[in-house]
Amino acid sequence: MRFFSDNAASVHPRLLQAMTAANVPDTAYDGDALSAQLNAAFAALFETDVEALWVATGTAANCLALAALCPAHKGVICHREAHIEQDEAGAPGFFTGGAKLMLLDGEGAKLAPETVEAHCAAIRDDVHQVQPAAVSITNASEYGLVYRPDEVAGLSEVCRARGLGLHMDGARFANAVATLGCSPAELTWKAGVDALSFGFVKNGGMSAEALIFFDSKLAADTRYRRKRAGHLQSKGRFLAAQILAMLEDDLWLDNARAANGGARIIAEAAGDRLLYPVEANEIFIRLSADEAAQLRASSFDFYDWGEGQARLVTSWNQSADDIRPLAKAIAAL
Amino acid sequence: MRFFSDNAASVHPRLLQAMTAANVPDTAYDGDALSAQLNAAFAALFETDVEALWVATGTAANCLALAALCPAHKGVICHREAHIEQDEAGAPGFFTGGAKLMLLDGEGAKLAPETVEAHCAAIRDDVHQVQPAAVSITNASEYGLVYRPDEVAGLSEVCRARGLGLHMDGARFANAVATLGCSPAELTWKAGVDALSFGFVKNGGMSAEALIFFDSKLAADTRYRRKRAGHLQSKGRFLAAQILAMLEDDLWLDNARAANGGARIIAEAAGDRLLYPVEANEIFIRLSADEAAQLRASSFDFYDWGEGQARLVTSWNQSADDIRPLAKAIAAL
Amino acid sequence: MRFFSDNAASVHPRLLQAMTAANVPDTAYDGDALSAQLNAAFAALFETDVEALWVATGTAANCLALAALCPAHKGVICHREAHIEQDEAGAPGFFTGGAKLMLLDGEGAKLAPETVEAHCAAIRDDVHQVQPAAVSITNASEYGLVYRPDEVAGLSEVCRARGLGLHMDGARFANAVATLGCSPAELTWKAGVDALSFGFVKNGGMSAEALIFFDSKLAADTRYRRKRAGHLQSKGRFLAAQILAMLEDDLWLDNARAANGGARIIAEAAGDRLLYPVEANEIFIRLSADEAAQLRASSFDFYDWGEGQARLVTSWNQSADDIRPLAKAIAAL
Amino acid sequence: MRFFSDNAASVHPRLLQAMTAANVPDTAYDGDALSAQLNAAFAALFETDVEALWVATGTAANCLALAALCPAHKGVICHREAHIEQDEAGAPGFFTGGAKLMLLDGEGAKLAPETVEAHCAAIRDDVHQVQPAAVSITNASEYGLVYRPDEVAGLSEVCRARGLGLHMDGARFANAVATLGCSPAELTWKAGVDALSFGFVKNGGMSAEALIFFDSKLAADTRYRRKRAGHLQSKGRFLAAQILAMLEDDLWLDNARAANGGARIIAEAAGDRLLYPVEANEIFIRLSADEAAQLRASSFDFYDWGEGQARLVTSWNQSADDIRPLAKAIAAL
Repeated sequence: MRFFSDNAASVHPRLLQAMTAANVPDTAYDGDALSAQLNAAFAALFETDVEALWVATGTAANCLALAALCPAHKGVICHREAHIEQDEAGAPGFFTGGAKLMLLDGEGAKLAPETVEAHCAAIRDDVHQVQPAAVSITNASEYGLVYRPDEVAGLSEVCRARGLGLHMDGARFANAVATLGCSPAELTWKAGVDALSFGFVKNGGMSAEALIFFDSKLAADTRYRRKRAGHLQSKGRFLAAQILAMLEDDLWLDNARAANGGARIIAEAAGDRLLYPVEANEIFIRLSADEAAQLRASSFDFYDWGEGQARLVTSWNQSADDIRPLAKAIAAL
Repeated sequence: MRFFSDNAASVHPRLLQAMTAANVPDTAYDGDALSAQLNAAFAALFETDVEALWVATGTAANCLALAALCPAHKGVICHREAHIEQDEAGAPGFFTGGAKLMLLDGEGAKLAPETVEAHCAAIRDDVHQVQPAAVSITNASEYGLVYRPDEVAGLSEVCRARGLGLHMDGARFANAVATLGCSPAELTWKAGVDALSFGFVKNGGMSAEALIFFDSKLAADTRYRRKRAGHLQSKGRFLAAQILAMLEDDLWLDNARAANGGARIIAEAAGDRLLYPVEANEIFIRLSADEAAQLRASSFDFYDWGEGQARLVTSWNQSADDIRPLAKAIAAL
Repeated sequence: MRFFSDNAASVHPRLLQAMTAANVPDTAYDGDALSAQLNAAFAALFETDVEALWVATGTAANCLALAALCPAHKGVICHREAHIEQDEAGAPGFFTGGAKLMLLDGEGAKLAPETVEAHCAAIRDDVHQVQPAAVSITNASEYGLVYRPDEVAGLSEVCRARGLGLHMDGARFANAVATLGCSPAELTWKAGVDALSFGFVKNGGMSAEALIFFDSKLAADTRYRRKRAGHLQSKGRFLAAQILAMLEDDLWLDNARAANGGARIIAEAAGDRLLYPVEANEIFIRLSADEAAQLRASSFDFYDWGEGQARLVTSWNQSADDIRPLAKAIAAL
Repeated sequence: MRFFSDNAASVHPRLLQAMTAANVPDTAYDGDALSAQLNAAFAALFETDVEALWVATGTAANCLALAALCPAHKGVICHREAHIEQDEAGAPGFFTGGAKLMLLDGEGAKLAPETVEAHCAAIRDDVHQVQPAAVSITNASEYGLVYRPDEVAGLSEVCRARGLGLHMDGARFANAVATLGCSPAELTWKAGVDALSFGFVKNGGMSAEALIFFDSKLAADTRYRRKRAGHLQSKGRFLAAQILAMLEDDLWLDNARAANGGARIIAEAAGDRLLYPVEANEIFIRLSADEAAQLRASSFDFYDWGEGQARLVTSWNQSADDIRPLAKAIAAL
């Protein structure tokens, strides 16, 4: 059983059904009937007007958001372990025209308001130093921790005082909401978020993520930038179909709950091997090379995460029965 | 019936089947079993080793090719009516880091070798003028004309003499091959093409195009640039599945033949209304505003193409029976 | 005697004196006492508040202006023969992050309002087409013609209606003002210009041009972009010294009058050889290869300008006595 | 007396003389007689063929070098305190088209080979991570330390093994050579340096630095990039004149020796206040706020360098007599 990544899991059958249903001629690009429903569907979910754009990847969603928030000559503050820094091949530099990522530390890949404030305060207000324009946080974080609404609001307060935009990389936003039990609104615009990359692909989707702007002014140029980046698909209705299917009856939340539930089973078995509390669907544990080999010999696949550590990720489609053998194997180490 | 664009047509059912079959967990990105077959599948089709990358859009395929062939400080020669100039929102400038498109004229959106040579000869060899690095042609062209292998070879000769790369935007490559009856090899690398955007989306695909490099050295950096542009999808197997289904039993060729066949029916009916010979699946005709209104009143949709002209595009899924009413209506004008 | 270009003429001795006088330690960059005088000096000249930045080249001035007026995904409308298109090595693409130059025609390298309006009107308001953000005109033009204040105002009217910024490349702004006898204000902000590249190097300067913003909001980010482009010199006082010396007692205007006067002498001698009226310090004439050779044999240097045509440029430091031999030689052909 | 920065010192009179002498008409750009001497002059100095380009600023020299060594999708390894990271406003991102600076630690702003190797070894060889293309070191470093030839060679060995280019930011290269007593060749190409920013402005120059390529292939495109960045001045002879005057009779070395000598006087006085050994013309000392105020009250100007620390910089034109009062004041604290 694979615990490599939720990235590689299968697609929820309701999405494939929705895509099949969408297979009738319609207007190209995002002029079709399904794409036209996105703004309203997300407005209902977020309890406020939004602009919602589909794109095929989280990298595209993140970096279009950054390009909307940060001009080429400024910088984006993020955690040193942020996905945009570590795993996107320099895409932020590409989409922004060379803006700098400003890397800060923080436990569990989370930024604290005082860290952001201290960084900003240390930048001289002169033309030799790159000035920050935005902060980007990942929720759930790269180490599977969540930011609570009040933590986001704390960051947002610094952003407002400093004139910075606030972006949330929500590749696992669903997992965070599922854990927190809050509303999507509480975790985003009510806490000061300007733009959200709302991930679906890791959560049972195939090839559609949503980029949500809570400030519609940010969206206008982004529609041009999306095309300019080759991300405006001509049969966009198949992306919209996936997203709408995800939103219908809160499938996104059910899937996230399932993945999170699997992670909790493993977390309990892992006990004090845990490197971080498990607040989403990622589990980071201490694991010697021997132990790792032992688990792999039992057909459990996962990533080593530095010396003596491992990352396990559960997916929407793994049932408790799928998970328990791994939990048992870890407990037995 | 819609004759707006093949962009908006439905997806061939065999692709949806292949995608459904691909819905099992596999390695993410392009590490899956299907993506791993692409190079071999296209090598068989092109009768030579190639590097083949899936991307979601023709714009991404084109502009990744241009980025591989042209550094930021040089230029790409293309037709004034080229898709990369007219319809990609400045994507070539984005992907290349600001390279210039050098716009030339030519009947039916086709470039002639002597036009390219004359343009190059007129550029002073000094640092004040942008120097060309590549030529990009569209086959079939934006006006539905095809370049024959010897025409491509003629352009390639200039390219070789001038040290320029040669890119073919093959959004309707299938339609060109179907018309010419030549092999894909003859129309590309045997005629000197370095990189081909092999389009499937307009030809019954959903969200997968292939970028083919005949020189594998060009492909290496492109794999990084694809990720950096947010075009490396995590469930890439669904793009590979579409492409492989297209290649199987030459579905791509059958679809193109069908679309071309429809276009010929209309062309015959249009007679001397035709602005260009119909060599693919696009028909450009003289049509007064009144005549256009008349056709639209009969539920035929299409684009006006400047004053007194119209563009009609046939699709893979339109049968002769679907087409004939339009042909008849045009003949009756 | 050289009639190649005013680019290569010598530097006015008052500038060298001013530079020598500036050779005392002062604060680096533009924190020195001389740089601090620029805004006020130009405000006096232009009869309004301005932000004035020194840069070393006209290309830097032009392209920083364009970067302030045009985001990466939009376009700048200019004449097909504009210096920014023809002679700046793609610098506009570099400074703007890939924005497109939109090339229009017009007699003598001048744009007409109706041409600009027609171009804008033909651009579909959709994301596939690059939208214009600014217009850039050159005054005096690349063919030595001037835009009068009312002509600039006519263009500006289109710009305002279309939401476009208006940039004036004034590499030979002094020559235009000298010819028109208008005030600098009348030819710029009073006629709707947002940013002016005010050239000094072709007019007796050494290495300093001024970039003038009539809207101070545009200047703020430009100060960062100037540094980011490597154009913030640490001993900026030597650039400021040049510019201030140029402004003192209207040296810039005297120099331009001298160059223009020389051009008029040649123009009179050239008679109906003239390809354009001579309104600044450039003269374009019909000249056969034999005639060109004859002039060169008499030690007159100049550029061929296409088949059977030549460009002659007079400089601030060429007296009537320097010019007359050439005038005589042309008259004698 | 100012100990802020060598950036703001006066220009050596021999340079002003050379510039005055250059004030005769000549060919524009770098086609003049003086610019034409640069390659040979530097070849003599470096005992090997080089390509030498003048530019107005160290930022331009550094970033044109980086653009020659690093494509947009890769990264440049440098020290966290490197000038290119800290003080160039993001210029590396601009000139390279968005390449990443990879920031490493090291005592006194110096990189060690093992640090570079460890960084490279930790980068996964996959498309998600930015791959390094070059290393950039500053000699003398930002904390006034020098790399010895064998230290440079140690870094170069890692570069060769990893396929990385090696750039030296030599804003204070003269100071390093003066301290080391080695030849310029030993400290650069003989130790594996590919490109050197050879600074003159901090060393008595006005507005000319030299960008030296030891591999001429790297220079060809750079000449285009220099123009594209607006750094090709039309009266380039005034930059060449400065540089040639600096090279004549080793004025560059004399000036650096003078500045270094001044720094040693202060260093001796500072004793155990020193934070780093003084190996060039910068002195970093412990200094309380009270002590700093005391020195400033005696008209000594300098930068605070974080809490309780200060930076003092000596210049070519400060004699021992100029320096001693400060030395005495520090000793007396």
